[in-house]
Amino acid sequence: MTVSKASNPTAAILIIGNEILSGRTQDVNVQFIARSLAGLGIRLQEVRVVPDVPDRIIGAVNELRAAYDMLFTTGGIGPTHDDITSECIAAAFGVPWELDEETDREMKAVMGERYNEARQRMATMPRGAVPIKNEASIAPGFTMGNVHVMAGVPRIMQAMMKTLEASLPRGERIQMRAVHGMGVLEGGIAAGLSVIQDKFPQLDLGSYPFKRDGAWGVALVAKGTDLPAIDAAIVEATDLIRAQGVEPVQGEPAG
Amino acid sequence: MTVSKASNPTAAILIIGNEILSGRTQDVNVQFIARSLAGLGIRLQEVRVVPDVPDRIIGAVNELRAAYDMLFTTGGIGPTHDDITSECIAAAFGVPWELDEETDREMKAVMGERYNEARQRMATMPRGAVPIKNEASIAPGFTMGNVHVMAGVPRIMQAMMKTLEASLPRGERIQMRAVHGMGVLEGGIAAGLSVIQDKFPQLDLGSYPFKRDGAWGVALVAKGTDLPAIDAAIVEATDLIRAQGVEPVQGEPAG
Repeated sequence: MTVSKASNPTAAILIIGNEILSGRTQDVNVQFIARSLAGLGIRLQEVRVVPDVPDRIIGAVNELRAAYDMLFTTGGIGPTHDDITSECIAAAFGVPWELDEETDREMKAVMGERYNEARQRMATMPRGAVPIKNEASIAPGFTMGNVHVMAGVPRIMQAMMKTLEASLPRGERIQMRAVHGMGVLEGGIAAGLSVIQDKFPQLDLGSYPFKRDGAWGVALVAKGTDLPAIDAAIVEATDLIRAQGVEPVQGEPAG
Repeated sequence: MTVSKASNPTAAILIIGNEILSGRTQDVNVQFIARSLAGLGIRLQEVRVVPDVPDRIIGAVNELRAAYDMLFTTGGIGPTHDDITSECIAAAFGVPWELDEETDREMKAVMGERYNEARQRMATMPRGAVPIKNEASIAPGFTMGNVHVMAGVPRIMQAMMKTLEASLPRGERIQMRAVHGMGVLEGGIAAGLSVIQDKFPQLDLGSYPFKRDGAWGVALVAKGTDLPAIDAAIVEATDLIRAQGVEPVQGEPAG
């Protein structure tokens, strides 16, 4: 049952977002996409946030689509002057940026007189792109090669991700189990945890301090595709916490 | 009063965090650091998240410290086997990783018998590093060249950032003003917004859709160091919203 980490497809996320870099907006798209990918057995290997600047977007797209099996972008596909992702994807692939006739017809049909020049930009795509239709917006995202281009607004991105999920390549599901203990400090369990990690090289064992009601605790998390190994590692992690004189609690700490 | 964008120091953030890539943890460090930097007049130009893998950390550190005036890292400086940031910074700079005598003495004095081998890793740093003492933890972060290495736990990172703020280079403060309108759609104001952006090339004008009580609205945001220009751009953005038949509201939308 042990599956090498390399057998899962890999992915990166590129966030095109001045509003994240300025601190205006708290990103919530990374966690949503990360969880979706984990459920599909796809390993998220990198996230980047770059500003709304063509060279930066084009450079990052070309680096990340070459380095990983797939790339998900969020942001910059609306109708305003700072929405330049779509043109940049065309430039990254070296193809023309042109009207997608079917999307154009559909948007015109739905929007009628409100379908102006700015909105028509949302029906314009790199040649060869496949629209990502979705339940949240008449304006689609699109897939170009191994690059999935989505909106930055979370509920629209989530609807696009839902559409995409049906057709993404899958790997063995990546699973996670946790145990935690209040009053345990990382320094007290580090040596023991290292021994467990060495016993289960196919897993990622992580240790995450948290504070609750003014006191520190630690959550120990085992992650991988080998569920029996995850369960066995969590049994040992549970003993490790108990050996600190603390009653272990299964799962992640609440809140 | 117009200040070119290039006059502000630039920065990047590198998050070393399997827990972000797996979707386990919602990152909150980027927004905190981004806001701190904006207040100091430092332009955050890039964020990366990489896994706890030496080559990935070393490569990203060397790329980002060369590309920007300063780099902030979070995560991976605790006492456990997966805390490898400190060794990786030493490798990135090509210097030995060795005990910082003063930090070692201080941690021993505070922790007494609990000061074990795992905890001593937290007093071990790249040669030439300067500890970042802080109010949240006896274990410091450190500054190595233009790289500021901080904890991943938000409240400890925040305390380290507080220490750092006194000594970081500053630029002219980056300010932001917003106006929003319920019922305005981006497609309706895109052309007008582009005209305003062209009039104020020293500013970043952004347009951000939001949903509240089931209805869409748009926030228009002007950002830069030239406050009179920001105010003038917001006056025009306010008129643009009013021209849509909507009563504009100053500031960001609540919630």
